[in-house]
Amino acid sequence: MRTLVKDLPEKIGETVELMGFLHWRRDLGKVQFLLLRDRTGVVQVVTGGRRLPLPESSLRVVGRVVANEKAPGGLEVQAEELEVLSPALEPTPVEIPKEEWRANPETLLEYRYVTLRGEKARAPLRVQAALVRGFRRYLDRQGFTEVFTPKVVRAGAEGGSGLFGVDYFEHRAYLAQSPQLYKQILVGVYERVYEVAPVWRAEDHATSRHLNEYLSLDVEMGFIGSEEELLRLEEELLQEMLEEAYVSAGREMELLEAERPSLPRDIPRLTHQEARRLLREELGYPAGADLSEEAERLLGQYAKKRWGSDWLFITRYPRALRPFYTYPEPDGTTRGFDLLFRGLEITSGGQRIHRYEELLESLKAKGMDPEGFRGYLEVFKYGMPPHGGFAIGAERLTQKLLGLPNVRYARAFPRDRHRLEP
Amino acid sequence: MRTLVKDLPEKIGETVELMGFLHWRRDLGKVQFLLLRDRTGVVQVVTGGRRLPLPESSLRVVGRVVANEKAPGGLEVQAEELEVLSPALEPTPVEIPKEEWRANPETLLEYRYVTLRGEKARAPLRVQAALVRGFRRYLDRQGFTEVFTPKVVRAGAEGGSGLFGVDYFEHRAYLAQSPQLYKQILVGVYERVYEVAPVWRAEDHATSRHLNEYLSLDVEMGFIGSEEELLRLEEELLQEMLEEAYVSAGREMELLEAERPSLPRDIPRLTHQEARRLLREELGYPAGADLSEEAERLLGQYAKKRWGSDWLFITRYPRALRPFYTYPEPDGTTRGFDLLFRGLEITSGGQRIHRYEELLESLKAKGMDPEGFRGYLEVFKYGMPPHGGFAIGAERLTQKLLGLPNVRYARAFPRDRHRLEP
Repeated sequence: MRTLVKDLPEKIGETVELMGFLHWRRDLGKVQFLLLRDRTGVVQVVTGGRRLPLPESSLRVVGRVVANEKAPGGLEVQAEELEVLSPALEPTPVEIPKEEWRANPETLLEYRYVTLRGEKARAPLRVQAALVRGFRRYLDRQGFTEVFTPKVVRAGAEGGSGLFGVDYFEHRAYLAQSPQLYKQILVGVYERVYEVAPVWRAEDHATSRHLNEYLSLDVEMGFIGSEEELLRLEEELLQEMLEEAYVSAGREMELLEAERPSLPRDIPRLTHQEARRLLREELGYPAGADLSEEAERLLGQYAKKRWGSDWLFITRYPRALRPFYTYPEPDGTTRGFDLLFRGLEITSGGQRIHRYEELLESLKAKGMDPEGFRGYLEVFKYGMPPHGGFAIGAERLTQKLLGLPNVRYARAFPRDRHRLEP
Repeated sequence: MRTLVKDLPEKIGETVELMGFLHWRRDLGKVQFLLLRDRTGVVQVVTGGRRLPLPESSLRVVGRVVANEKAPGGLEVQAEELEVLSPALEPTPVEIPKEEWRANPETLLEYRYVTLRGEKARAPLRVQAALVRGFRRYLDRQGFTEVFTPKVVRAGAEGGSGLFGVDYFEHRAYLAQSPQLYKQILVGVYERVYEVAPVWRAEDHATSRHLNEYLSLDVEMGFIGSEEELLRLEEELLQEMLEEAYVSAGREMELLEAERPSLPRDIPRLTHQEARRLLREELGYPAGADLSEEAERLLGQYAKKRWGSDWLFITRYPRALRPFYTYPEPDGTTRGFDLLFRGLEITSGGQRIHRYEELLESLKAKGMDPEGFRGYLEVFKYGMPPHGGFAIGAERLTQKLLGLPNVRYARAFPRDRHRLEP
């Protein structure tokens, strides 16, 4: 019966069986020390008269658990048996226990199939899994249905740019940029839906905040009165996601020394117009209509200082800056919003137009050809209820929550402008 | 405050607000009857002196709940207010309340964006969401980590055939056929992982059991002794998945008159060799090495009759029938297995080879060039523990559980040989 490293403090004086990877070793001749790493932590093992295999070999150890205040975690295991389940054949390209996952990203990513084994390297994806679990649990409780929409599509949701082409038998198809149309259709079926799935953007960026394949946490809700219900929903949703991360990935949060974000029950809000005025008049920043990354960063700092919040909604985006399906207001703004977390946009959302004629008008007002959106438009002939939704970028949320220097560390095997492997 | 249809029996005598879709209507001149459908069910509404909009219009109704044993569900709502939130502009291409989702699949699928609204049409995806929820919950409790692996890959896990090509900037890439390699790598990191994600097969089939894009429920577990632990894991996992379907999608199971499957705690097992002998000697079927669909159907019937089980493991597949990474036995068989549910293969799995040299040998024995698998092989230089896993096809499981005539009805917007829309 295998014991996990995290449970060893309750086993002092007992003989246990451990399994894991040789994390680190030191040979003093008569005595050998090693650190054994399993999915729950690292423990010191002492043995004698053996030649230890290379680091990252997988091992089975049987031994007695003994208190030792000099050992990491205050205990060690004195090995009686030590079996090499599978030896490493070569030294690892990066020394796993010395991993400095903040440095040398190219090497870390090139050998990610083994560098990901580092305690700090593997932690963000455990946190992300917990955030996603919180996301689903909250929405399940609110009567949402999880859906799985197609990722190979005939056309893009917002026109033709930024799409990766797919050869689908004799047809040209594309990888979905977002489940936008499908989640809207499904509001007509299940009223409230969510999806956790990859999306693709064929954008040429090579920055620390862009991925070409990322995990989108999508929400869409029918029978709403306005975008107000979406803002409220996202506030409560984020509370539960963070709670789940702290409860079920607390060890990882601690290991990464993540600063606990301040998430007020009511996230502060600025309209897009207020945000621009603030940037210009109080922050001395000549903000264009489309808020730049720097503008978002400054607004994030402002929200922290002024309201003690790591989060800030920017509401009422002007029509010119939002997709054609965004619900317009008579004053030229829309019911579209963004959410900034520590100065980074992690959500875009809004109420959608639900009437056929208004969608036609909106397309024309944007100079777009309704003919190109025939498939999209069809469903709006059948009584689509007032609805709206948003999407959270899982990797960006994880990155900002954990203070990762690069969004790539929040994805198991990132795809970017130059990376298709591993 | 909106009331859901399912909660109406507790509201008799009260005035409630309902929202939903006009499911069906009948105009008797002075009195109009309609059925209002929301995500939880259908209720009769009575109103007077109104012209009702077309079916599928979305409505808001305020009225008193009154017992009426002649009405469906034993109650009706006498409308005081009736607001059309959004009118349908055209008759639906298929009459939703008369939906005969067992018939006319081409029409149903062509107009799926609206035919999916039918009570029976929408039910399978609710059941599927519950199955997936049970899948995750069980595995979370067993210390598994949910992972999200890349779907755009440099090469296929099992060679080059059956892949859809993707134009990834200036590179040729492919849609992942399975997360096989990635889940194996991640066993070296998290020991136990699962993934719920789409996979793609560019296969030319146009049958009722094949999809070109489907949802794969993938599991991979490290530090196992043999495939026995995988069989045990899947037995318990399926119990929890079915339980969740009955608990949280019980209404849908009932609506579809799904026959409750008999799932013994110990699923009966036949080795591949025993299965062939049985087919030949007892069932009079000249079984080839590769079990045909008909052979699987016969074996399914046999398991039901002989052991009262809707499920049957076929174990110890011969090496020739399994991918190169399957753990071989000295007698020419492997630790690879399939699971049949009601005579349909819904799982393929097995223990994997975890040592580098054995993988090299296995590739050569299959006449494959190790050079083409360099990326795959690299991780096996670093002490991969004994491990194995399996994948469950979510749509096939849903199809067989609910007795759907076509696997396409178990996917929101199926992709097949001729279908890229909606």
